[in-house]
Amino acid sequence: MKNPSIQTSDWIDEYQNGVRYGLAGKVLLDEASPFQQITIIESLRYGKGLLLDRCWMTAERQEKHYHECLVHPALCSAQQVNRVLIIGGGDGGTARQCLRYKDIKHLDMVEIDKRVIEISQQYLPSIGEGVWTDPRFHLHIKDGISWAANAQSNSYDVIIVDGSDPTGPATGLFNKTFFKNCRRILKPGGIFATQSESPEAFPQIHMDIVRILREVFDFADPLYGCVPMYPSGWWSWSFASMQSPLYLQPLSSRAADISKECEIWSIRWQKGAFQTMPAFIERELKK
Amino acid sequence: MKNPSIQTSDWIDEYQNGVRYGLAGKVLLDEASPFQQITIIESLRYGKGLLLDRCWMTAERQEKHYHECLVHPALCSAQQVNRVLIIGGGDGGTARQCLRYKDIKHLDMVEIDKRVIEISQQYLPSIGEGVWTDPRFHLHIKDGISWAANAQSNSYDVIIVDGSDPTGPATGLFNKTFFKNCRRILKPGGIFATQSESPEAFPQIHMDIVRILREVFDFADPLYGCVPMYPSGWWSWSFASMQSPLYLQPLSSRAADISKECEIWSIRWQKGAFQTMPAFIERELKK
Repeated sequence: MKNPSIQTSDWIDEYQNGVRYGLAGKVLLDEASPFQQITIIESLRYGKGLLLDRCWMTAERQEKHYHECLVHPALCSAQQVNRVLIIGGGDGGTARQCLRYKDIKHLDMVEIDKRVIEISQQYLPSIGEGVWTDPRFHLHIKDGISWAANAQSNSYDVIIVDGSDPTGPATGLFNKTFFKNCRRILKPGGIFATQSESPEAFPQIHMDIVRILREVFDFADPLYGCVPMYPSGWWSWSFASMQSPLYLQPLSSRAADISKECEIWSIRWQKGAFQTMPAFIERELKK
Repeated sequence: MKNPSIQTSDWIDEYQNGVRYGLAGKVLLDEASPFQQITIIESLRYGKGLLLDRCWMTAERQEKHYHECLVHPALCSAQQVNRVLIIGGGDGGTARQCLRYKDIKHLDMVEIDKRVIEISQQYLPSIGEGVWTDPRFHLHIKDGISWAANAQSNSYDVIIVDGSDPTGPATGLFNKTFFKNCRRILKPGGIFATQSESPEAFPQIHMDIVRILREVFDFADPLYGCVPMYPSGWWSWSFASMQSPLYLQPLSSRAADISKECEIWSIRWQKGAFQTMPAFIERELKK
């Protein structure tokens, strides 16, 4: 079903298993990096947008739907947030949401594809905003899987995996070896977060991620929300921790300033979103 | 942005404000009834599907995402479910979910467009299943607005509005006069339910529905879920009642048998879905 040719005229579509989702607009840039096809479009509805390998990643007026739901459940619930690691996240949106927390002293972002960063800085500056020059922000153009394998044990309060679908460069970000390394480098009282795909478009991958996280960590749960430009619009993010399911108890003191400027996320939203597991997924995960 | 010509070849799309959502398939029927354009397609992904006026309504392998979320929060929470009224719902899916409750003695379904019913019976028999011949089911090919205006006071335990977007034949199903009549004909301890559009694709209509329901009823709240084939994939349903927000407390005794065969809905899902109001809607509704 994947359409190898992207339209440069009226509609730019992502194709997924008999379904397509398109935005009216035009292609501004379409280039092959060493890792993937990078496309920038200008859309009528959501402003400029980014596709990787013909899949929607983000857009100026839609990015909060994804980044808020990935970042704040972790950052508002971890015991401390001094040192944070982001793997992937080249558009800068995850880092921007993180750096809103004044308590963060050091943020490592490990992105494999330098061109995603350069192109995002050029075409999507509002998504990363000031992160690129924030003194707390440390960018490493490296493979996140090796980074996790080589980092010091107990060195991060929060680890966030902001990768694309588990094909191409993101393949190794969804397996047990990688998750085990993430657990090892996470401090006690810390939280691990990853996007975990759509329960409707990719139910098997979604459930595999949750199951492996539950094997590797002491506690892990998905929450469900919506990213209209992603396949099915229905998306999930999963959170994991040791000792207790910390991510179920966001701290209102830390959340107060953050939620004021959020489009989607609030403590209320987060608590609800952990409960809205569809019945068919709940039954499958119990097996 | 609305594209007046539907493709009969590879892709059938709904167009909405610079966005399109398409299914690969072919058109089986495309006819104008006195009320609207009715289209039946055969899709690769979701089986046969129905469009009204070029907007996705339902499909064989997706209808539960919508019908379960509209029906069960009301039916599982009302004090009694002896007499139920459905306005719209011509594909039969809402009636099918209702008639799973053995306590229902009498179900009136008031659908304005006879052709939607006939076509659904012919092309989408799995959506209505046995409802058309269930002795508790009473079909009235009439205008639902007049029905609500003329029905006896205190005559229904549950009223469900299953209409299309508030243009065309469904226009009058989203205003104060209609909602007031629904309140009048609802029994104490009853629940009113309506689809209430997408908070992302139609935020103003969504909030207007919630606001008017809150004016007319004593309690009203939206819940949020996903219907991948609808604009943005992100959808809402709103529930209203008198005396207390009954819909927040589904009865586990009544739910036990129902949820076993649900794809999405469970008591857990329902309680979460009432909390996943996006922050921007919560702020707007407080104004």
